Amino acid sequence: MKDKAVVILSGGLDSTTLLYEVRTLFKTPNVSAISFNYGQKHSKELSMATKTCKYLGIEHIIINIPELGAFSTSSLTSKSIPIPEGHYEEESMKSTVVPNRNMVLISLAASYAISKKAQFLYYGAHSGDHVIYPDCRPQFVNAMGVALNICDWTPLVLDAPYLKLNKGDIVSKGLKLGVRYDWTWTCYRGEELACGKCGSCIERLEAFEEAGCKDPVKYEEKVVL
Amino acid sequence: MKDKAVVILSGGLDSTTLLYEVRTLFKTPNVSAISFNYGQKHSKELSMATKTCKYLGIEHIIINIPELGAFSTSSLTSKSIPIPEGHYEEESMKSTVVPNRNMVLISLAASYAISKKAQFLYYGAHSGDHVIYPDCRPQFVNAMGVALNICDWTPLVLDAPYLKLNKGDIVSKGLKLGVRYDWTWTCYRGEELACGKCGSCIERLEAFEEAGCKDPVKYEEKVVL
Repeated sequence: MKDKAVVILSGGLDSTTLLYEVRTLFKTPNVSAISFNYGQKHSKELSMATKTCKYLGIEHIIINIPELGAFSTSSLTSKSIPIPEGHYEEESMKSTVVPNRNMVLISLAASYAISKKAQFLYYGAHSGDHVIYPDCRPQFVNAMGVALNICDWTPLVLDAPYLKLNKGDIVSKGLKLGVRYDWTWTCYRGEELACGKCGSCIERLEAFEEAGCKDPVKYEEKVVL
Repeated sequence: MKDKAVVILSGGLDSTTLLYEVRTLFKTPNVSAISFNYGQKHSKELSMATKTCKYLGIEHIIINIPELGAFSTSSLTSKSIPIPEGHYEEESMKSTVVPNRNMVLISLAASYAISKKAQFLYYGAHSGDHVIYPDCRPQFVNAMGVALNICDWTPLVLDAPYLKLNKGDIVSKGLKLGVRYDWTWTCYRGEELACGKCGSCIERLEAFEEAGCKDPVKYEEKVVL
């Protein structure tokens, strides 16, 4: 019997959709969400995560792990390196990689899940992610699943149900679940309005277009895909 | 060609020996050590780690991750739960488990190793550990090795060379390497003198006895094994 679950919630589009979906599988008091502040420029996503959890009545904690951002020279965390413009697949987007970020987040989330006596840890990696991020590849998620299964005396199941979906599929799914996408944040720059030019914004806009719906988030300028 | 290495250094007996050994395999400037403050009562071990690294001329960083200790109700981190006395194998010692601790430490150390462009991450798990700690079992270390191998585009090798050694073997090895065991800390209580009664102290004393050498660390009272 499925009992308790923890969801890794960035406050972005994928993990927020996942949280809404997990809520349909477990009773609300048995679902918790965990977010991380690792020095990302777009820490604005964390306030979105908080808003969503309050709205859904989900217990939520935010863990500070500034060292993770400080180790690397990722444009996602270093003030001196600008977030690149252009499509995700482009070479320049590799500057946004934070080394081994996902293993750190999954492992801390697993500690939390074990302390909550949860049997399931949900993680919103999707098929578009692994083009530039080595730690979003299906084989990485599978390897982490094997490790989590034996990291405690009671197995913890790592579930990444969106691993074969693209972002358009996820938005389509989320629209049916009633996800408040106005309370999600995707732009890597993290300024007042989304830039519409970074790989993350472009991918989000394409996902909404694919799902046949307008993105409720406001952009700096009119974006032409 | 072996080039750069990072050693996970607790400041205890095993990882300190490992650091001395890794130093014989790599050039000193190519070895770094990483330690963690996760709210352990015996954070005194961290000052030992610092002392050893200064002595050996090894670059050393300490990462603060207080949430890891705060999640759980481990006697290793909770002030309200005393460290149990008695042998490691005893049921009571299970209260010292910090859920998924080693995955968190390994994953953060891996982020650091990748940022240092190191190809090897050394970890001092030994054969005595896995009796009560699920995340010290060889199969766990192996699973983490698989994940680390693909967590970045360049493989990172997780090496735990003491996995089949017991603590007595490790001390014997360390004595040949000239390890300053007076600058290592093992007692879980972390007070002025080692207690000599917790599982950790008992195991350390047995290791020195097996290696035929007196432990240079001072104990609260004369310990009879």
